[in-house]
Amino acid sequence: MKARVHITLKDGVLDPQGKAIHNALGALGFGGVNDVRQGKYIELDLAAADPEAARAEVDAMCSKLLANTVIENYAIELVE
Amino acid sequence: MKARVHITLKDGVLDPQGKAIHNALGALGFGGVNDVRQGKYIELDLAAADPEAARAEVDAMCSKLLANTVIENYAIELVE
Repeated sequence: MKARVHITLKDGVLDPQGKAIHNALGALGFGGVNDVRQGKYIELDLAAADPEAARAEVDAMCSKLLANTVIENYAIELVE
Repeated sequence: MKARVHITLKDGVLDPQGKAIHNALGALGFGGVNDVRQGKYIELDLAAADPEAARAEVDAMCSKLLANTVIENYAIELVE
């Protein structure tokens, strides 16, 4: 079973990486951009076949390692 | 209109960041992980209201700045 995890900065947390992309896009002539936020995308290939168990395991991974829950949100999506 | 862009390494391209996450998960006791791949996730808030125009603009942004198309694939998803 595969899991897709999106890790994004919480609203209100400054995103210097997104700001840099925004500026670079402006410098390249892409003016019609109001805001840019950058997050992380992680694909996990899991041995677990049970969706409930897989979700619980990925949730533990996110809170222990993958995301900094003080400033980041995470969303888990299971595939197949 | 908002656009979500996923940038992932092409198959066959080594992913040292994913490998590091895999090892760290193993060290934390998460043994049931076969593979980890890390990508980027970018949210763009666009001024363009026309989906066709927005998609073409984001496609140009990806090929010019956001993605390294030699080693990375990108996927664009428009929201609202």
